Amino acid sequence: MLELKKINKFEAGERIDGFYLIKTAEVKTSSTNKRYMDFTLGDSTGEINAKLWEMNEGYEEDFVPNSLIKVRGVVSAWQGSLQLKIEKIRLTVKADEVDIKDFVPVAPYTAEDMYQVILDYLGRIKNKDIKNIVNEILSNELERIMYFPAAKKNHHAVRSGLLYHTSTMLKAGDKLSEIYTFLNKDLLFGGIILHDMAKLYEMDSSELGIVSDYTIEGHLLGHIIQGIKIIETAGEKVGADKEITMLLEHMVLTHHYEPEYGSPKKPMFPEAEMLHYLDNMDAKMYDMKKALEDTEDGEFSEGIWSLDKRRIYKARNF
Amino acid sequence: MLELKKINKFEAGERIDGFYLIKTAEVKTSSTNKRYMDFTLGDSTGEINAKLWEMNEGYEEDFVPNSLIKVRGVVSAWQGSLQLKIEKIRLTVKADEVDIKDFVPVAPYTAEDMYQVILDYLGRIKNKDIKNIVNEILSNELERIMYFPAAKKNHHAVRSGLLYHTSTMLKAGDKLSEIYTFLNKDLLFGGIILHDMAKLYEMDSSELGIVSDYTIEGHLLGHIIQGIKIIETAGEKVGADKEITMLLEHMVLTHHYEPEYGSPKKPMFPEAEMLHYLDNMDAKMYDMKKALEDTEDGEFSEGIWSLDKRRIYKARNF
Amino acid sequence: MLELKKINKFEAGERIDGFYLIKTAEVKTSSTNKRYMDFTLGDSTGEINAKLWEMNEGYEEDFVPNSLIKVRGVVSAWQGSLQLKIEKIRLTVKADEVDIKDFVPVAPYTAEDMYQVILDYLGRIKNKDIKNIVNEILSNELERIMYFPAAKKNHHAVRSGLLYHTSTMLKAGDKLSEIYTFLNKDLLFGGIILHDMAKLYEMDSSELGIVSDYTIEGHLLGHIIQGIKIIETAGEKVGADKEITMLLEHMVLTHHYEPEYGSPKKPMFPEAEMLHYLDNMDAKMYDMKKALEDTEDGEFSEGIWSLDKRRIYKARNF
Amino acid sequence: MLELKKINKFEAGERIDGFYLIKTAEVKTSSTNKRYMDFTLGDSTGEINAKLWEMNEGYEEDFVPNSLIKVRGVVSAWQGSLQLKIEKIRLTVKADEVDIKDFVPVAPYTAEDMYQVILDYLGRIKNKDIKNIVNEILSNELERIMYFPAAKKNHHAVRSGLLYHTSTMLKAGDKLSEIYTFLNKDLLFGGIILHDMAKLYEMDSSELGIVSDYTIEGHLLGHIIQGIKIIETAGEKVGADKEITMLLEHMVLTHHYEPEYGSPKKPMFPEAEMLHYLDNMDAKMYDMKKALEDTEDGEFSEGIWSLDKRRIYKARNF
Amino acid sequence: MLELKKINKFEAGERIDGFYLIKTAEVKTSSTNKRYMDFTLGDSTGEINAKLWEMNEGYEEDFVPNSLIKVRGVVSAWQGSLQLKIEKIRLTVKADEVDIKDFVPVAPYTAEDMYQVILDYLGRIKNKDIKNIVNEILSNELERIMYFPAAKKNHHAVRSGLLYHTSTMLKAGDKLSEIYTFLNKDLLFGGIILHDMAKLYEMDSSELGIVSDYTIEGHLLGHIIQGIKIIETAGEKVGADKEITMLLEHMVLTHHYEPEYGSPKKPMFPEAEMLHYLDNMDAKMYDMKKALEDTEDGEFSEGIWSLDKRRIYKARNF
Amino acid sequence: MLELKKINKFEAGERIDGFYLIKTAEVKTSSTNKRYMDFTLGDSTGEINAKLWEMNEGYEEDFVPNSLIKVRGVVSAWQGSLQLKIEKIRLTVKADEVDIKDFVPVAPYTAEDMYQVILDYLGRIKNKDIKNIVNEILSNELERIMYFPAAKKNHHAVRSGLLYHTSTMLKAGDKLSEIYTFLNKDLLFGGIILHDMAKLYEMDSSELGIVSDYTIEGHLLGHIIQGIKIIETAGEKVGADKEITMLLEHMVLTHHYEPEYGSPKKPMFPEAEMLHYLDNMDAKMYDMKKALEDTEDGEFSEGIWSLDKRRIYKARNF
Repeated sequence: MLELKKINKFEAGERIDGFYLIKTAEVKTSSTNKRYMDFTLGDSTGEINAKLWEMNEGYEEDFVPNSLIKVRGVVSAWQGSLQLKIEKIRLTVKADEVDIKDFVPVAPYTAEDMYQVILDYLGRIKNKDIKNIVNEILSNELERIMYFPAAKKNHHAVRSGLLYHTSTMLKAGDKLSEIYTFLNKDLLFGGIILHDMAKLYEMDSSELGIVSDYTIEGHLLGHIIQGIKIIETAGEKVGADKEITMLLEHMVLTHHYEPEYGSPKKPMFPEAEMLHYLDNMDAKMYDMKKALEDTEDGEFSEGIWSLDKRRIYKARNF
Repeated sequence: MLELKKINKFEAGERIDGFYLIKTAEVKTSSTNKRYMDFTLGDSTGEINAKLWEMNEGYEEDFVPNSLIKVRGVVSAWQGSLQLKIEKIRLTVKADEVDIKDFVPVAPYTAEDMYQVILDYLGRIKNKDIKNIVNEILSNELERIMYFPAAKKNHHAVRSGLLYHTSTMLKAGDKLSEIYTFLNKDLLFGGIILHDMAKLYEMDSSELGIVSDYTIEGHLLGHIIQGIKIIETAGEKVGADKEITMLLEHMVLTHHYEPEYGSPKKPMFPEAEMLHYLDNMDAKMYDMKKALEDTEDGEFSEGIWSLDKRRIYKARNF
Repeated sequence: MLELKKINKFEAGERIDGFYLIKTAEVKTSSTNKRYMDFTLGDSTGEINAKLWEMNEGYEEDFVPNSLIKVRGVVSAWQGSLQLKIEKIRLTVKADEVDIKDFVPVAPYTAEDMYQVILDYLGRIKNKDIKNIVNEILSNELERIMYFPAAKKNHHAVRSGLLYHTSTMLKAGDKLSEIYTFLNKDLLFGGIILHDMAKLYEMDSSELGIVSDYTIEGHLLGHIIQGIKIIETAGEKVGADKEITMLLEHMVLTHHYEPEYGSPKKPMFPEAEMLHYLDNMDAKMYDMKKALEDTEDGEFSEGIWSLDKRRIYKARNF
Repeated sequence: MLELKKINKFEAGERIDGFYLIKTAEVKTSSTNKRYMDFTLGDSTGEINAKLWEMNEGYEEDFVPNSLIKVRGVVSAWQGSLQLKIEKIRLTVKADEVDIKDFVPVAPYTAEDMYQVILDYLGRIKNKDIKNIVNEILSNELERIMYFPAAKKNHHAVRSGLLYHTSTMLKAGDKLSEIYTFLNKDLLFGGIILHDMAKLYEMDSSELGIVSDYTIEGHLLGHIIQGIKIIETAGEKVGADKEITMLLEHMVLTHHYEPEYGSPKKPMFPEAEMLHYLDNMDAKMYDMKKALEDTEDGEFSEGIWSLDKRRIYKARNF
Repeated sequence: MLELKKINKFEAGERIDGFYLIKTAEVKTSSTNKRYMDFTLGDSTGEINAKLWEMNEGYEEDFVPNSLIKVRGVVSAWQGSLQLKIEKIRLTVKADEVDIKDFVPVAPYTAEDMYQVILDYLGRIKNKDIKNIVNEILSNELERIMYFPAAKKNHHAVRSGLLYHTSTMLKAGDKLSEIYTFLNKDLLFGGIILHDMAKLYEMDSSELGIVSDYTIEGHLLGHIIQGIKIIETAGEKVGADKEITMLLEHMVLTHHYEPEYGSPKKPMFPEAEMLHYLDNMDAKMYDMKKALEDTEDGEFSEGIWSLDKRRIYKARNF
Repeated sequence: MLELKKINKFEAGERIDGFYLIKTAEVKTSSTNKRYMDFTLGDSTGEINAKLWEMNEGYEEDFVPNSLIKVRGVVSAWQGSLQLKIEKIRLTVKADEVDIKDFVPVAPYTAEDMYQVILDYLGRIKNKDIKNIVNEILSNELERIMYFPAAKKNHHAVRSGLLYHTSTMLKAGDKLSEIYTFLNKDLLFGGIILHDMAKLYEMDSSELGIVSDYTIEGHLLGHIIQGIKIIETAGEKVGADKEITMLLEHMVLTHHYEPEYGSPKKPMFPEAEMLHYLDNMDAKMYDMKKALEDTEDGEFSEGIWSLDKRRIYKARNF
């Protein structure tokens, strides 16, 4: 049996066998007017160009970006790069027991653990209306929430990133409400859980946690407006006090803080204000931590787009 | 019987009788520690300060700004201004047959006529879902829509100003869709009727069409977000196609065009784009026409706040 | 006789004959140190790279971008693309009876019809001075106005686009002045006709309606300032009332509305304000209509540069 | 002995005796050409106008705004307001045992307790250089730091406000570094303590914690630049590693985040980023809490200048 | 004969005689229903309120702001201020030999001297077309240019301020062209002389150099556009080369540099760029010098509006 | 002996010998898995790609960008471009007597002459403290200042550009202080010399005057803040008056004028204001002069990045 090879171990001339993620897929036409597929395949160690010269029925529909595949082929060198000529290809199946973490970035905790954090905080909410509204909204999305990222790119664009972002904010919000004791925890926890929940409707994500595109409604309305809609509907359904519904809607509406970032109003009570800081702070900490992981002591990272192209410095002293 | 006098005819020393609008009302304490009421009264001809030295039970609650009152009193001169000492005062009643136009600015057409224009265009909408949504929303507010202004101040801040603004936009939209024939009239007419409808929930207006303040929800969410909420609810109630609901919501969401004016997204289809122009154009035409009514030929108006403090010129030649 | 082939019908190996537009033309040097010409040729169906290996005297000057040529050659495949080796080449002549519409985008009405619309509205202007100024300015440019586009790229960048833009605005302005009856039609029609007229001096356009570049004066002053200059000169020549001249100049000066778009002043009377809306609205309707023509139902267009990179949505329902 | 009266208990005609704060003081000339002093006096219950008709030598220099005085006088009513005619006046002395809290707003903890918090965190800093630099800077200002406010107006503009702001941020930073464990606590605590320390040199404050004005250097350089200067000097004095000094300077430089708020650079490492959020969040929480203290349930506060004129809402439900 | 008294020497009770400038003039109605005039009079030493109780025919038209008058009256004290009761009043005549400098701010050189500077630089221009255009424009305004200020308020808002500003810029431009020797002096000097010349048509100024208002054309077009118009007309009249005219127009067009300050284009050649700096620098130097004249050593001036409200510091050391 | 060939004289097939500057250097791996070096070499006449197939020990470290090398090799043509195959390579040595001007852009005066200009102006400063501070700062950098450019790219990014920029500004400031005589020359000259001096610490420059990158401190603080630090340290060392130090620091702090360009404060005295204009003006004159050197009469330059992408026009008439 052939060894399952990682991409960075490929050498020209050898035959390989392994599981890879399709990063890009394109149908092209050869000089002999024959259709073939041109892929970029990836795993946790790197990427390689691959050609599939014999196209069968249904290949074009099956082998799309963000699919996990099993592949057999031969490696060759072409113009200084390695290339894989695919001989056999199929989608992975459950029995393959492929570990997603080997192919896509994932949050550092399991989805189950992070979801439990959210349930714990939900359990601490005393106000019935807030608890009911949050519960109603969560219960519609028990499945997709487990793998959804928090963004298409930028901060928390990893599998289960939405849970990761939300659960970290809950913990931080909990801590800060020990300092700023006048904050209403029910409102704060409820607002945190709901603030990005409509990203589930703004974006299309595969189970790998990779966003292919925004939904039509996501384009036309955006997750802030979509979030208000689901709170309104949930509030009506559970018969919540109108003010409670309105307060949660205001928190979602204002959490981006600036009109040019999608919030036409600014926070008008402290829990909404704090939600904004928790959100922004968690995103920035995520991005900076990530930038520093790839940076040497005494060096700057590349310019990070989501940090206004700032280059992040890793001190020599720490 | 005493003559019903207009304020600009008042002379020091005479006794008068008439109907006036309370513009401001304040309870003050005299140097002898007695409570009295200090008013500014107005009619179509001017304003005058008035004192009510004898306060009865309930006066403070009854005689509030924007009430129409019947008053008898004596005019005196004090520090170069005229002042009215009130002897008798009561709220007007139906039998007084007071004409609102004599006290507050009103739209140039009757509310009934303008509402009929809206119904006519509603009748021309062929798409069932759009027709049903608009109908559902209108039917909740048959009364208040008749007198509501379109703003607290600035454009169309007159009694029935909301109807005036909406019906003019419908007519203009109708005309322009003869030029730009690819526009969908159902969507355009529906969007126009709905675009400012949630002002009914954003502001508190007396039946005189004078806005005392924004509502709590108006402050926290604003009429754009409130408009989306009522469309969402109406859409669910009438079982409309999801895309239709979303298109109308997008039109309301984007009609202010710029984030800093409350629209976090820009129009993404032509009917939404046209709605924005019709709205903006109608507001600007209203403000300019009004500015010129008070301006002489060959002169500039005062700087108009809602026109970025522009001074409007009235040409000598026309 | 060879068939006149459209580019999208070319196949490797065949010999073709046809009329094409030179899109780009460059003189290059081959590895054997020989000068040759490298073209991109286009027609209504597509584009193809073409090489002319044998350069004659004058070729470099004759075969410049935006020329229509007759070509004979052989198609070959190179690195997956088709390429044309030119054997014979000449500029088209009248006798070829080439239809411009087959090569460049044109307005949907004939230049003659659109010019007639402008003359009709000119005929409706009652004010002698306005009529004379407009007439004076038009009469200087009877020829070039027939093919000039309204822009180098973006809205109305088609042959006769200037006439198309102006005549549509006249029709829309006419409609809206039935709603906003206080507008002075003489001023409005005059302002519309003149507002972009100096684009004739701002840009250099071939008779195909393709702008090669801005003129020196166009760069240094821009069509707004150039427009004021021609109105000033025309006003003096026809002995117009100074205020009339000034009003028309103000309309041209302010029609871009914002300083960063070239208008240092904002409109100070309603006809100037309306001119701005008509201009902006017509440009936006044009761009949106065009974007939707290439878009499927239920899909978004590409991001459109002139619409702030917005992607335009084509509803499924309409 | 006369009773020590609070201002809100004054009645016309009575003679009073008490301690008050001079809020404004002006020397005026009476109609009889005599110089007298016109004061606004205040205590924790309100304000009153007061006249001192007999001016002695040195009064003008002694009785300046923000002085605490002992006063005897007679209350009268004039034009509907009460007024105090001063008979005896002197500055307070230690023996009067006046409690500052009765006259000016103060932080909710004692200066000693809050300073101890800072010392505790200083004690937790392990890096010698950071500890030495912070220590050096603190040791120069043992006295003034006890009463200095954090601002002339806006957030933490109370006696000992600088200690209050700094110690709260240390506690919050401590909490958040339990969530974001990759943060270096030495750097974070050091940066927090130093970030506003140069306000001691930017503003002139009385011992009451009231800022009369900015210093000349405060005007010309500002506390961010002044802070960098004192870190540079302290760093050189204690012989700190150059990078450590630079990191602390960067934290001070960037803590306002935006150029238009005084930070020409943005944070380039996570501790600097976090410092900004802690600073901003603490200021906003302070302002919102304060706004809500004066607001009824279900009402909005006045527009708060330091919150971009936002009106803060106090929910009915909480 | 009565002494001619300066306002700061007035004492209650005395009768005075003198020349003053009318700063404000208003017709009011007394409590006895009699019309009277209420003035603010000023001279180089201060201002005083004055009443003219007996109004003759024509007074209202004659005694308008910015007129110089001879007055006799009696000084009295009222509510702590002095007031003048006018007994005799007349406009000044030539025989009074009043010196304007005693009443309004004037440039530090005589208009004749500054105009001569301009003529000297005009004489140094070698290019015929530039010289002719400048000459043509100057020759139209030989009179008004002598007293015109350069602004309504802000920099050089003094009698002959336009000459002062222009002549200083010429001197500075001359100096700098010795450093930047590639600058064309003809273009630079021509551009400087013309850059603000249309202020003569933008504003209405009395012979005292005080601007009462902008002209209609000044409002609608502004001095930049008006300047281009007069250059265009002059260029045609003297038959100048088209490029020369265009270059001068571009210099006027761009000298404010930023769209929001009125320049829709930025300078595109060095002489235009330099013109901008000379203009801006001269304005700023003027404003700063003026601010420091009223400031003590070691103190800040008031915030200066035209310097973005900056307060200017006068060093102790110099 | 082989001729020393300029790059623009290279022809395919010949063997050449010469001195060149390494512009880029990269180690690559050939298809046969061998490491080789790929260079871009340049001289005053052009650039060429070069390959060094045989890599010795230490080559990678020696032959880095911005090194001057002696090279022998053979020219070949490849895909229409020339390429150099390197046979021998070494770094230049003093004995080669290579003239830097042949390889990198340099200022038009010698470093020695420009440095003398600075010393002359330093000699004219009468104030002891200013003279001492400037002297102290200059004396630390006698070597590097001779070759440092004033920028990484844009204005004065040439060898000795810092001296060129500074000495030109001194001359211009001297001239203008003859016009604006109230300016303090000591402060102005001192401020000019110091304003960009910290660029020596912000950037790393080779002796060729080419900046490879910003320093860590340059990134984290920037030359404005670094400049304040060196003035503070120098001021303390020479025992300067605190106000003098502060004034110089304010000048450095404010010389970029706008927050978004790095100056958190605006100039608050005229010498600081003038410093800004001198700096800006000198940069712009440099960029425009350079742009015009590559432009034909009657043509526009390319868009210049440092001039907001403006294209600069070279008039036909001059």
